[in-house]
Amino acid sequence: MSFLSALAAAVPDVVTDPQILTGYRSDQMALAEAGEPLALVRARSVEDVSAVLRLATEHGVPVVTRGAGSGLAGGANAIDGCVVLSVAAMDEIVAIDADARTATVQCGVLGGTLAEALAARGLWYPPDPASKAFSTIGGNIATNAGGGCCLKYGVTGDHVAALTAVLPSGEVIRTGGRQRKNVAGLDLTRLLVGSEGTLAVIVEAVLRLRPAPRPPATLVAFFTTVQDAAEAVGAIQACGDPSLLELMDRTTIGAVERATRMGLDTDAGALLIVQTDEPDPDAALARYSDACAKATELASTTDPSEGEQFLVARRQALPALERLGPTLLDDVAVPRAALAPMIAAIEEIAARHGVTIGTFGHAGDGNLHPTIVFTPTTEPAARAAFEDIVRTALSLGGTITGEHGVGTLKTPYLTEMLGQTERSLMHRIKTAFDPTHTLNPGKAL
Amino acid sequence: MSFLSALAAAVPDVVTDPQILTGYRSDQMALAEAGEPLALVRARSVEDVSAVLRLATEHGVPVVTRGAGSGLAGGANAIDGCVVLSVAAMDEIVAIDADARTATVQCGVLGGTLAEALAARGLWYPPDPASKAFSTIGGNIATNAGGGCCLKYGVTGDHVAALTAVLPSGEVIRTGGRQRKNVAGLDLTRLLVGSEGTLAVIVEAVLRLRPAPRPPATLVAFFTTVQDAAEAVGAIQACGDPSLLELMDRTTIGAVERATRMGLDTDAGALLIVQTDEPDPDAALARYSDACAKATELASTTDPSEGEQFLVARRQALPALERLGPTLLDDVAVPRAALAPMIAAIEEIAARHGVTIGTFGHAGDGNLHPTIVFTPTTEPAARAAFEDIVRTALSLGGTITGEHGVGTLKTPYLTEMLGQTERSLMHRIKTAFDPTHTLNPGKAL
Repeated sequence: MSFLSALAAAVPDVVTDPQILTGYRSDQMALAEAGEPLALVRARSVEDVSAVLRLATEHGVPVVTRGAGSGLAGGANAIDGCVVLSVAAMDEIVAIDADARTATVQCGVLGGTLAEALAARGLWYPPDPASKAFSTIGGNIATNAGGGCCLKYGVTGDHVAALTAVLPSGEVIRTGGRQRKNVAGLDLTRLLVGSEGTLAVIVEAVLRLRPAPRPPATLVAFFTTVQDAAEAVGAIQACGDPSLLELMDRTTIGAVERATRMGLDTDAGALLIVQTDEPDPDAALARYSDACAKATELASTTDPSEGEQFLVARRQALPALERLGPTLLDDVAVPRAALAPMIAAIEEIAARHGVTIGTFGHAGDGNLHPTIVFTPTTEPAARAAFEDIVRTALSLGGTITGEHGVGTLKTPYLTEMLGQTERSLMHRIKTAFDPTHTLNPGKAL
Repeated sequence: MSFLSALAAAVPDVVTDPQILTGYRSDQMALAEAGEPLALVRARSVEDVSAVLRLATEHGVPVVTRGAGSGLAGGANAIDGCVVLSVAAMDEIVAIDADARTATVQCGVLGGTLAEALAARGLWYPPDPASKAFSTIGGNIATNAGGGCCLKYGVTGDHVAALTAVLPSGEVIRTGGRQRKNVAGLDLTRLLVGSEGTLAVIVEAVLRLRPAPRPPATLVAFFTTVQDAAEAVGAIQACGDPSLLELMDRTTIGAVERATRMGLDTDAGALLIVQTDEPDPDAALARYSDACAKATELASTTDPSEGEQFLVARRQALPALERLGPTLLDDVAVPRAALAPMIAAIEEIAARHGVTIGTFGHAGDGNLHPTIVFTPTTEPAARAAFEDIVRTALSLGGTITGEHGVGTLKTPYLTEMLGQTERSLMHRIKTAFDPTHTLNPGKAL
């Protein structure tokens, strides 16, 4: 029996209509390569996933697993002749255990949907990638997604207690446990987190929850230079435990002001947005204001809805830059001490390649998203600038990707980032899970 | 050249004197099997470690890595004909970076030594296994050691940013990075954490630090029954974020009182010790006192040195039980809701096997250390009781080891705990690191 016939016999929802397939070819990173899939399977159950993987492994057909397709590194992009395995329809919240503070969810549950279900019970799942409303928990786990709250609450992996996943053989494995403390065997949970669909297909997760945090208090500070803002980032973190600490550079401020007319100071070289859920918000805001010693303008509020207004500027950063033209969104993270040199280098790179680069990001973790705006004629310059940014991050002791993943976009930098011995070891681990290299071959590792 | 000659030519400190070797045969778990080592190497450098591993792999000689030998599961116990590779002398604190809040340490640095160096700078490395003063950071990482503060601050692995380790081939790898956010490649750091010397030899670590916490406030509560105390554990965690939440049962209270004459209520069925470093200690203590609704006696203090006195009872739990005879110390963790049934089952197991079992532990994580006191004639009964305790924890959805590791002691329960598919996968991962199964063969996995 041909692979497609066997597939159609094994699972209910197999699609080969080229028009539908087109919509499943790539994620949100337009400039990453994408191939032509052979078929799409919309899995409804663990059994579906298992059947697809078993058959694909038998027939030597690559499988690309896909949640919401909101990735930013091409990790879910199709490979020529692959099966795109969509797990978006596996979207049940299986259980919320308020006493144990865990939620058990299928991989296709959206972050926003889970947040609503939890809020009704006074519970909270901290990870907050910007895509939270429309990205899946499974995708967040597969990329170890970040967000704004990581500086205080950690990344996605810090909140995953246990996983159910399907190996390329079709076998189902369970990793981790509900206990915070569990040292039996190797930590397969953390190995699957961030593995970008190369080891197994995550189908269910037990997530660790926290009580809902206090309503945030918010501070906005403008600075003449990025260097002044970077200094303030260090000073703020030295005097407290902010739950959000975001930065926007001059280009981003200008783009947001043009898009929103919200009255931002477009003469400013940088803007910081700080939030805190500490017990004494007034005291915290006072400390953070003092820490912004060189700020030219400060505004703060303990009113959460007013604070939310302040955050609009940050949320508009990417959309506002996207209004200027097609963009190439980067994602690097550097030690906090290297924040100012990194941003200075980005400005130099923009000038040298003749492209506009707006930089914003999670300054508290040194995680920046330089966003290169280009035109059809400057696309090669944009790609060159992108490469220079990644290499600069590496030279400053940083990482080639802080939270978006390697996907197809960052594979050229992997050996430099990880080392050849380490990369070979990762390939051997990949083979331990996936001897036929069926899952997302060529990506991430 | 014979293996021993090659070894002696390659590294300076090779010991074959049987009397010295005896002291390196086992860790602190007396009842775990220990073999006869061929030689001991006291490594002074990464090059030493590398040379030993390369030669051992070439010659098919097993290697057991050893820090302070303070393990509690036989993980560092010798295997017949092995090289014991002591890394205790690699004990340099390489760097403390107050701005980045990281410490770079060699594997042999003692937790207590690091704590002192950090305290001088107002910094803190949270993991606090009971062995902290005399166990090595490398050993803590290799076992993913726990302790009392885990319920608030997490386990050892949560504080490890990056590792340098040596593969059995002798190659040196670097994992992780200084960034909190780094999603490039597989998470080798978390894979090495808790791998109990089976994958690679950890030689250096970059640890994440925090500012020193506020001085703790302390509450002690006595209860008529363990069930009442277990209810209070849930109520306390529902109304705050304690930094320590320890339990002692009737048997343990009695043993500690006999040993210390500190005036504990020996009629009590259980005792809780709660600490908090929250900003308003008086308010927190009031909430936690209220949460101990069924307490028969309560005492609290915001004076840290008085609080330290309260903690003496808990610290004396194991020594006091050890005064009653040889002990077999267990380490299980169950969901918090199963705390009361677990302790009830332990009481039943003690009665059935005719042995004394004192139970104490980190109630806030459901992590208990039932300690079986036996005599030469009751040793078989003690072993049977131990087995029943582990199987009861499994049947309550718990883990066979919360923080001590699998070592040789818990391997009989691994398949039941992990599943056969998962265990086979772990073996394949082991082989990806260690194709000749040179490192701690037969242990942990």
